Formats: sequence, structure tokens, C-alpha cells
Amino acid sequence: FLPSLSIMAEENLSVVLHAKGDLRIENRPIPEPGPNDVLLQMHSVGICGSDVHYWQHGRIGDFVLKKPMVLGHEAAGRVVKVGSAVTHLKPGNRVAIEPGVPRDMDEFFKRGQYNLSPTIFFCATPPDDGNLCRYYTHNANFCYKLPDNITFEEGALIEPLSVGIHACRRAGVTLGSTVLICGAGPIGLVSLIVAKAMGASKVIITDLFAERLAMAKELGADFQLTVKKEDGAQVLAKKVKEILGTQPQITIECTGVESCIQTALYATCSGGVVLLVGLGAEMTTVPLVNAAVREVDIRGVFRYCNTYPMAIAMLSSGKVNVKPLVTHRFPLEQAGQAFETTRQGLGIKVMLKCDKNDQNP
Amino acid sequence: FLPSLSIMAEENLSVVLHAKGDLRIENRPIPEPGPNDVLLQMHSVGICGSDVHYWQHGRIGDFVLKKPMVLGHEAAGRVVKVGSAVTHLKPGNRVAIEPGVPRDMDEFFKRGQYNLSPTIFFCATPPDDGNLCRYYTHNANFCYKLPDNITFEEGALIEPLSVGIHACRRAGVTLGSTVLICGAGPIGLVSLIVAKAMGASKVIITDLFAERLAMAKELGADFQLTVKKEDGAQVLAKKVKEILGTQPQITIECTGVESCIQTALYATCSGGVVLLVGLGAEMTTVPLVNAAVREVDIRGVFRYCNTYPMAIAMLSSGKVNVKPLVTHRFPLEQAGQAFETTRQGLGIKVMLKCDKNDQNP
Amino acid sequence: FLPSLSIMAEENLSVVLHAKGDLRIENRPIPEPGPNDVLLQMHSVGICGSDVHYWQHGRIGDFVLKKPMVLGHEAAGRVVKVGSAVTHLKPGNRVAIEPGVPRDMDEFFKRGQYNLSPTIFFCATPPDDGNLCRYYTHNANFCYKLPDNITFEEGALIEPLSVGIHACRRAGVTLGSTVLICGAGPIGLVSLIVAKAMGASKVIITDLFAERLAMAKELGADFQLTVKKEDGAQVLAKKVKEILGTQPQITIECTGVESCIQTALYATCSGGVVLLVGLGAEMTTVPLVNAAVREVDIRGVFRYCNTYPMAIAMLSSGKVNVKPLVTHRFPLEQAGQAFETTRQGLGIKVMLKCDKNDQNP
Amino acid sequence: FLPSLSIMAEENLSVVLHAKGDLRIENRPIPEPGPNDVLLQMHSVGICGSDVHYWQHGRIGDFVLKKPMVLGHEAAGRVVKVGSAVTHLKPGNRVAIEPGVPRDMDEFFKRGQYNLSPTIFFCATPPDDGNLCRYYTHNANFCYKLPDNITFEEGALIEPLSVGIHACRRAGVTLGSTVLICGAGPIGLVSLIVAKAMGASKVIITDLFAERLAMAKELGADFQLTVKKEDGAQVLAKKVKEILGTQPQITIECTGVESCIQTALYATCSGGVVLLVGLGAEMTTVPLVNAAVREVDIRGVFRYCNTYPMAIAMLSSGKVNVKPLVTHRFPLEQAGQAFETTRQGLGIKVMLKCDKNDQNP
Repeated sequence: FLPSLSIMAEENLSVVLHAKGDLRIENRPIPEPGPNDVLLQMHSVGICGSDVHYWQHGRIGDFVLKKPMVLGHEAAGRVVKVGSAVTHLKPGNRVAIEPGVPRDMDEFFKRGQYNLSPTIFFCATPPDDGNLCRYYTHNANFCYKLPDNITFEEGALIEPLSVGIHACRRAGVTLGSTVLICGAGPIGLVSLIVAKAMGASKVIITDLFAERLAMAKELGADFQLTVKKEDGAQVLAKKVKEILGTQPQITIECTGVESCIQTALYATCSGGVVLLVGLGAEMTTVPLVNAAVREVDIRGVFRYCNTYPMAIAMLSSGKVNVKPLVTHRFPLEQAGQAFETTRQGLGIKVMLKCDKNDQNP
Repeated sequence: FLPSLSIMAEENLSVVLHAKGDLRIENRPIPEPGPNDVLLQMHSVGICGSDVHYWQHGRIGDFVLKKPMVLGHEAAGRVVKVGSAVTHLKPGNRVAIEPGVPRDMDEFFKRGQYNLSPTIFFCATPPDDGNLCRYYTHNANFCYKLPDNITFEEGALIEPLSVGIHACRRAGVTLGSTVLICGAGPIGLVSLIVAKAMGASKVIITDLFAERLAMAKELGADFQLTVKKEDGAQVLAKKVKEILGTQPQITIECTGVESCIQTALYATCSGGVVLLVGLGAEMTTVPLVNAAVREVDIRGVFRYCNTYPMAIAMLSSGKVNVKPLVTHRFPLEQAGQAFETTRQGLGIKVMLKCDKNDQNP
Repeated sequence: FLPSLSIMAEENLSVVLHAKGDLRIENRPIPEPGPNDVLLQMHSVGICGSDVHYWQHGRIGDFVLKKPMVLGHEAAGRVVKVGSAVTHLKPGNRVAIEPGVPRDMDEFFKRGQYNLSPTIFFCATPPDDGNLCRYYTHNANFCYKLPDNITFEEGALIEPLSVGIHACRRAGVTLGSTVLICGAGPIGLVSLIVAKAMGASKVIITDLFAERLAMAKELGADFQLTVKKEDGAQVLAKKVKEILGTQPQITIECTGVESCIQTALYATCSGGVVLLVGLGAEMTTVPLVNAAVREVDIRGVFRYCNTYPMAIAMLSSGKVNVKPLVTHRFPLEQAGQAFETTRQGLGIKVMLKCDKNDQNP
Repeated sequence: FLPSLSIMAEENLSVVLHAKGDLRIENRPIPEPGPNDVLLQMHSVGICGSDVHYWQHGRIGDFVLKKPMVLGHEAAGRVVKVGSAVTHLKPGNRVAIEPGVPRDMDEFFKRGQYNLSPTIFFCATPPDDGNLCRYYTHNANFCYKLPDNITFEEGALIEPLSVGIHACRRAGVTLGSTVLICGAGPIGLVSLIVAKAMGASKVIITDLFAERLAMAKELGADFQLTVKKEDGAQVLAKKVKEILGTQPQITIECTGVESCIQTALYATCSGGVVLLVGLGAEMTTVPLVNAAVREVDIRGVFRYCNTYPMAIAMLSSGKVNVKPLVTHRFPLEQAGQAFETTRQGLGIKVMLKCDKNDQNP
């Protein structure tokens, strides 16, 4: 009867962060869905920089790990059980999981900005558990049915894609926009994909590393600019203008580095927008007057809201292609190796395959 | 001295509408540019439905032909002379010509809606002359330099493309939008092209004629629906929903037919927009309450404004392709045949080639 | 034990519509609040035109009375019991009750347009019971605490005021706006109050009855225009322009009468907005081309959303004064007389006082 | 011949800045209006902080005085002569003068943001002359007829009022907004007036000086907070929240002081806006991450555009009252004393009276 113990022991393998640096693959009970929830058999979960950051530092800003937490929030899976009040999903449905679920019908939620709701549940943000596991329950209203022509991995990638959508939407990217993207990491790349899909005519992207820019080129960037840490902000801003033939109307800053934010403000044309996605030090020294008197707006983003339906529409219609973003895959059991790969900055997106019987994309 | 007369006689061949039904190809003096103008050697001018309408009816609504008027307003040409105050253009520049030029710095212009300025100059709208001729002067600020990779014909097509841009922009087309377009004529087709470029995920287009829908399919329409004059508005609205899998968020109505406007209002989902481009009878009977209580906004367009720079950006970057729209070409001397072709509704866009030495696209 | 029966019999006197024309004052059990609800002792409930319409016709459009329904949705009361999950309210709190409560976290709700959610609960819209009774339970998230300087009646008036807020907000009223309001009934009057509070510089209001216009003048209308049923739409539009010295930028149509909607479209200046609040016949004949080519947008409203917090802020700060709107008061027991008063169009707003021990405003 | 010299010498007395610190009252020829201009007899011109700054420092940022320049740009006067192309004005008309006149129909102007046009003419910004003189010509399209119930001084005050309008409009002040204004100088005060007129429910204003806050209270501020230079930004942000009972949705920063900008960012609620009007040092150290992750937008303003018609509408309708802002008046001949008064920060607005025969408000 050891086997039966072993079976039970394997029933809900989960990637749990116990403390800074202490990442464990362990078993947890399979949860029971509440009336508005669904129980999901997880299929594909991408590793995000924030997962690695919690692992390495035990915190991000004011979010501090105080008790063991399941990681993972870029996820897709299959419904295996539905709560008593759920009507729009049934067992067998393949779904993308929006990790943020507002707990309160507060003024933010009522106004359509539920991402700003202070009491929102968010997968793998302490103390809320994520879904890097075999079985997971989630509010059914935040699970979105995937059409047959969207893979689970694409479903999981809707999460980082949502950051790009929210950023480009708040930045006001539209037909004919000229766009500067600082940083060609995963977020810079999804912002690029979305900006092009929204009609941007010319996108220039910058990075320290040529190989990341090569991927950006493949994904549709019109111009690439390799920068060095010591480059001056105003010099870079001028270079951007020369290459683009004009100042960009919109800059999406994905690095959080002070000098890059400065470049962003100098580079953007009067009446334009600098959108801050990358987060850096608490205090930042920036040429605020330069931006203010040119009416260059500075806007940040906190995660996203109302992105999943449009992301599914775009993926399903073939307007955007996120598949090239997945460069590594590991079975859930090899989560340690997967996290280490992400930590080293290898490739772009590392996928963990949670379904033992289906490790396809 | 006959030769000199003959040269003079040929120096500025122009297509002039003298009265309803009385279209003449005649000579006019080459105009002299004012200080803010450029003199243009015309290259390509498309024929618009409105040109034909003036020819056939002598009027459109309150715009009545009272004296001979040069037709043509979808145009591109080459700068041959610049006015004394012009600095951003020089002889040799290839330009697209925005036909509407505000005369007064009135409140509309100051607010960025110069298309609504009641005193605006507009090519080939009585009493303002158009540019279907060999030589033409125009305000330099409304002539836009064409990059080398944009042909004159593409430059001329920016005019109808602008209608599509203004329509889609006022309709709020964005990433993932589902769109119904009523009518697959030139304006329906440019709206389709622009909607896709702005990120629409699914566009369904309707028309009475299958061959027009075939062209729409080629240009990117996701679904086509052949309609019959006797189809009921609510029945069609239901069909659209069935085909699209959902009600469209946006409907762009390009026919002006009462039953189509009714279909548009019934078909569009709550919180959506019906954009009226097509113009029909003065009074229209519509299910206004149905639209109002579902907060379906009804918006019209009058020409366009602020579209040329973004159109050039889109054409130059290859994001949109309008070349397939040109189905017929005639030298300026055969304008009569060209107008007759347009009148008969053959093909999509008929181009007149105004430069005797360069009849290329 | 008869007394105890009698007490029980009186415990929750309610105004119940059993069928078209069959309005009864009867007793109902005091409901028990669910975990997210509060039990409220009702204080003041205004009678709305829709309450009377259900009484007289048994239906409004597709909403048909099929079983007995408590009327009333303009309401304020006092919390007497809170559900287990309620944290922001406690017994004794005085609250305004937003009658619409979304049942599903659907795409409308997530986008901040919960009023458009097709499954929304709404007081006194069949089959949902209203709150014209002694005791009533409601979702605590849609009960808003009233500051001490706001009376219960003002709290109840937030409901019609919300219609004015939503209308003016969707119409885009802002600093210096010139506004035409068609109809000086309760909705026209709250729209007037709100338009002035939002910065409208000049408001002209029309009505068939001079006495209603007199009240409008008192509430801040700059100009009043008495109209006759036989007045032509274009003639009236011209009169409005003459009186105002300019065409209004915004027209808020509160009558639903076809000729008034026509007047609204003709009267509004190019680039302006006609906001439809009044609802009339299913099909309406309007000068749609006239509006479309002048880019006069036509927008409807369905109830409102996100209005209560700003309404409370305005009332509390004294920026708006709705008190003059209450012209009649009746104890709950005299609901029949109150409904008859409203039906006859006497006064503006009739209040029912539901708390036997406190009949103050 | 002395008399004739004297007459000539007096014909166009002008306040001319020759160099840093070198302010002279001297005579200039009366200019002749061009075809689109009007010649104005100046009546009232307010002194702006920028006038004093040019006098004291000879420059503001990149705008450097290189040749003598007439000061003054807050102005109203009377038309005495009209250019040949002017139709909407005639001699005798009283007008407010919008000091910024776009020179080019560039993309900024076409989009309705002419204030951002790099080649704009602007009174008293080097090298463009202002209108602190007896006679002055200006583009007629930027002269706005004053109704009889608006004084010349109110007309002159439209200029600073415009800064408040543009700031509040870009900040999105609307019905029920809660607003923090940092700084109770002239711009803080006009922002306060405009915010209240746009529907703000509660405005809290801060300053170092109690007497300036007293004036703010008179003008409608709901709360005043006296701050000290050494107050910490986060402490002040907390105080603001305590006094207001909530975090402000909008902060209008009128000081340009780094710690105030920090306070503004900390104080504003999630999803809100910080509007920067005050300009300080080139580089500013701010809690950018704090603002970004709470989606607090940071927007600047450069002067204003499209404000004069709405300002006139507001003044004429009595919705705003700017008269209390004028605390000092001097005849043009005493410009030196007037400038000294402004330099010392006495009162709020100092008016120079340019018409010898009419020194009324």
C-alpha cells in the first residue's frame, strides 16, 4: 500500500516557495471549487520574472512572502469540475486563466479598473497562491474559453501579452503611431507585437544585447538600436530621432533603468506619451520640466484589466503570433531547472508543462 | 503662330463640369502659386462617386453647381514651383494633395476639426475647383511629401483611404474589435482595410453583389454576407450575429440605404457604435429607442481631418495595401470614358493619368 | 394572540403591483440579508414615472409584469442588520440605495458599464422587487453611506439625479458648454441641475407648460422656451439658436417625442452631441443625414452607472441642490394617493415616507 | 516744434525690456495692421510672473532675450482699425487678446494643439513683442469680442484663467472631483476657480503663506493647508488625505518645487492625475514607481489652447468671478512701480492701465 500513498502524494504536485531561495516541489491536496469557481487541471504555465524575483528576494516592493506560496500566474488549463453557480463553463473546456480576481465590488471595479482594486486576489502575489501545480481552483468569471485554434501555451501567454495590451492601450497606440520600446525582454517583445497589431507604422526597439534585438526584428520591429550602459540619455534620444526620421509619438519603457526613463522623456515628441512598464528604484531623477512643457504625458501600468477577450480575439484571428516567444519547455517535475533557466536569462519564455499526459504546446 | 496657340491650348488640359451632364475637357491657364501655395504638375487623380454625382445631377445636397468647375479631388502630383513663403517643399517633390484647406482660423480649425469649418475650401465641391487637370495650385501645408516607396497612385488613394481612417477612428476600432461593414464599394473596402490595420479581429462585410464581396475577401474580410433588397433588418442583424459568433461592437454603414441603417442599429452590440458613412434620404426611419437604451452610439463623418500623415506612415511601412483598388486607368484626354466607366460601376477605382510623360502608377 | 398576528401583519407593509391597474398595499415577510447584503429600514422612496407606467400598463417595452412585484427604486434607508461578509456598513448607517446590482461579473461589468449587463438586478423592473416597503435587503456594495448633511430624501433623489449625471457625462457637458434641454419634467430638471454643476455656461430648456419652465428657471435655466405641439422642428431649432445666440453644443432630449428629437438634431451645432434620455415610439423618423454630415453624435442612455459617489460628493459639498424637486409627501400607507398624484403630473417629485417614526425629509 | 515731438513721442508708449534688469518705458511707432490683423488700442494688461522673470533674469529656459522686447501678454483692448481680410471684427469692438498665434498650419495646429506648434508667435516671449503699450496689432482670429457684461480687466484675466482651464481640462476635473492644489499664487487660484466651476466637490489648497490661503478660501477652496518648507512629502500627503477624508483624484501642482511634486505623487489616489503647472529645476527626483504602479498619470501643460471662447462664456454667464484677483492698478506710465510691486509678491494681480482716457476696470 505504499503505492497508494505515493499516488496520493503525487495528486497535486505544486511549485511552492517557502522562503527566499527555498523553492520546493511538493504535494498539496486537490482543492474543491466554491460555487463560483472551477477546478482546473493545469496544462501550461509560463515562468515570469516576478516568480524568479520572489524566489531570489522573497519580496517585490511591499509584497512580502510570509508563508509558503504556490508560484505561477501565466497559465492555461482544462476545466474538470464546475461550482454550483457556474453556467458558462463545463468540464472539458480549455481555458486561459486571468490571475487577478477582484474580491470587492469597490469603486475601482465598478469603474472598470479592477486591476487597481486594493483587495484584488492575484495568483502568486503574497499571500495568494498561484497555479504552478497539477490542480487549481479559480473564479469561473476569470477563466476564458479558448477556441480550438488556440493552444494551451498561447492561452498561458495571454498573461504577458495582456501587459503589452494594457501598456499599448494606455499609451494610445493607434494607426500610424511611431513607437520607441526600451528593452527587448519578454515585456518589450509583447509590447512590440501588440503595437504593430494596433497599427503602429514604425517601431524602434533598444536593448543592451544584440541577440534580443534579433528576436525583436523577427517579431516585427522596424529598427533596432543596441545601447551601452554609459550612453547619455540625450544622445540616445537624438539617435532614436535620426533612425526613426522623427521623434516617436509613444515610448514604452520596459527596463525601469533611470537613464532609460530619461531617454524616454527626451526622445518622445511633444504631445506624446511615455508609458512606464519597467520598474526600478523607488526614487528616480528625471527631466520632468522637459516633458511637462512639451505635454509629454507619463503613465504607468499596474498589471492589466479587460484584456483577455481581445487577446483571444487577436490570437484566434491570427493577427498576432506569440508562439515564437516560447523558447524552453520543462515538465512540472523539473521546475527547478526551469526556474534556473529563467534566472540566467536564457531564451525568452520558459513553459512548465503540468499535465503528465499532454506535454504538447 | 498657330503652334504657339496650340501649345497654349494644351498647356493645362482640365476636366470641367459646365452644368449637369455637360462635362468638357478644355484648356485653362496655368495658375500662379500664391505665397503659401505650390504649383503642381498633376500625376494621378482618382474618380470619386461624388464627381460622377455632380456630373449626373449638378448637385449634392446643398452644394449646387452654379458655374463651371474642374472636377477631381483624389490626387497626387509633383511640385514644380513654390510660393514665396513655402519652406518645407521644393520643386521636384512628389506629394499627395489633401483637398480640404480651411480658409479661416475658426473655432473648428483651432480645435482640430477643420473638416467641419463651414468656410473650408474643398476640391471639386462647388464653387471650388478640383485638380483633374495638368497643372494646379494648392496650399503647401496641405501637400504631403511622398516617400520614395509610395507611388503617385497610392498618394491619390490616400483621399478615399482617409474616409476609411476617419470612419474607423471615430468608430473607435481597436485591438480585437469585431466589425460589420455594410456595403463593399470603394468606401466599404477602404474601411475594411483600415479596420484590419487598426487591429480588428473579425470583420464581416455585406453587399448585394457577390463579386464585390469577393474583392472584400481578397482585401482581408473574415466573413462575407450577400444580402437581398428585400431582407428584413432584424433578420439580417441576426444572421450577422450567427456568422460572427457575437454581435459586432462596431458597424460601419457605407450604403446610406434605410434598411441597412436599421440593420446596423439592430446588429450592433450594447455599448457599441454605428458609424454612418453612406448618405441616403433626408429623413430616415430608424429604431432609435432600440439603439438608445442599449447605448449604441450613432456617429456620422464629414470627410476627414488629420489623416494624411498617418496614411502615409501606413502605406510606407507596408501595413496597408491599397494598390488592388485601382482597376482601371485612362489618360487624362480620355476622361469621358473614365467617367462613364465609373458611372457604370465597373471595377473599383478608376485613375486618370494627368502627366503625359509618366503614366506609371 | 391576535395582537401578535396583527404586529406581524404590519411588519413589512409593501406597495405591490399585482397586475396592470392592480396596485395593493400589503404585508410581506421581513427578508433576511444574505452574506453580502444589508437589511434596510426604508425611509424615503420617490415615485418614478416608470412606477406609474407599470401600474397603468403592466409593462415597459420588453419588461412585462408576470407576477406581483414591489414597486419603488428611488430610495434611501437605514441599515438595521448586515450580512456576514459586509465590512463597510453597520447598523445605524444611513444609506442611499443604488437600485441596479449586477449579478454576473460579465464583460460589461468588468469594463465599468455594469448598467448594460443583461442579467443585472434592478429594483421594480420585472421580475425584480423594488423597495417601496418598510424593510428591504440589498447588496451592501450598492448601498452608499450618507454624510450627516444629506437628508434621506436627498439620498432617494440621487437615483433620478444619476440619470442626469449619466446623461450629462455621456453628452460631454463641460466648462462653457451651451446646452439645450428638451422637456422640463423631473429628468429634464435634474439634467439641468447637473449641466450647470458641470460648468455649462448657458442652458435653454423647452416645454409645453409654462409652469414647468418656471421651475426650471428657479433651478438655474438661463433661457426658457414654451413650445407648442404643432411647432415645426426646423423652426424651433432656429428659435433656439436665436435665443441662445449660437447653436447649442449639446442637446439633452428628455421627451421621446419624434418632433422633439428632430428639433434636437437640427438645433445642435456641428461636432456636437444629441443625448437621448426620453423614450418614444419604436421607430422614429429623423433627419439622420443632416446630423451625420455635421458630425452631430447621437447617444442614448440606459439608466446609469458609477454615479452615486459623485452625486453624494456634489450634494454634500452643496454644489447641487435637489431639495426643491420634492413637491409632495405621503406616508407609505397613502401610497395610492401618492401614485394618483404622480399619474396626474402634479408637482415634480412625490415622496413616500416609509418610516412610521420618522417622516422628516 | 516741441509739441509735435511730444505728440509723436507719446503716440505709442511701450514697456520695453532691453536687457536683464533694463526695463524702459519708451515710445514706438504705431504699427499698421496686416490684412488678417487688427490694430488695438490697449486698455488693461496684467503683469505675469514671466514678465518679471524676463526682467530679472533675461531668460526663461531656452527663451533668451537677445534684442529689446515689449513685455505683456495678459491683455484686452479696443479695435481701432481692421486689416483688409478681417470680417468678424470692426473698429470699436472690445476684445480679449489670445497671445499665442500659430504661424504655421503644422500637424500640431491641424490636430487642435496649436500651443505645441514650435513656430508659434507668443506675446512677450523672445523674440516676439508683447502688448504692454498703447497700440498693438494682432491676428484678428485670436482676438475675441467681449460681451458688454465683461470688463476689459476680466478680458485681460482670461489669459491666466486660460492656464487654469487648460490645466483642469487636461487633469480631467469633472463633477464630484476631489482636488489638491499645491500653491495659492495666481495660477493656483485660477485653477481653484476653474476646478470649482467644472464641478469639483472638494478642493484643498496648500501654501507657505496663510494670507494667500485666506484669499483661496474666499475664492471657494474647501480646505486650506499651511505647509512649511521642511515638511516631508509623505507626511504632507497623509495630512491631505486626513483633511479631505480621501485621497484627491487630481492634484494640480503650481509650485514647481521638488518636494511639492513628490507630495503630489504620493497624495493622489490610484488611477488619478498629477498635473504639473509649476516649473522648477531641470532634473527632478520623484517617486516615479509609486505613481506608475498606482496608474497615477503625470501630465504637464504648455500654456493653453482653445480656452478663450469657453472662458468668455463662463465670465459672461457669471459662473466664475475673477475680479477679486486684481489687487493693484497702475497707469502705464508707472509701469516701473507696477513691476516692482509684482516682483515683491504683493497682492495677486497687478493691472496696467494703458488707455489714458479710460482707467476703469
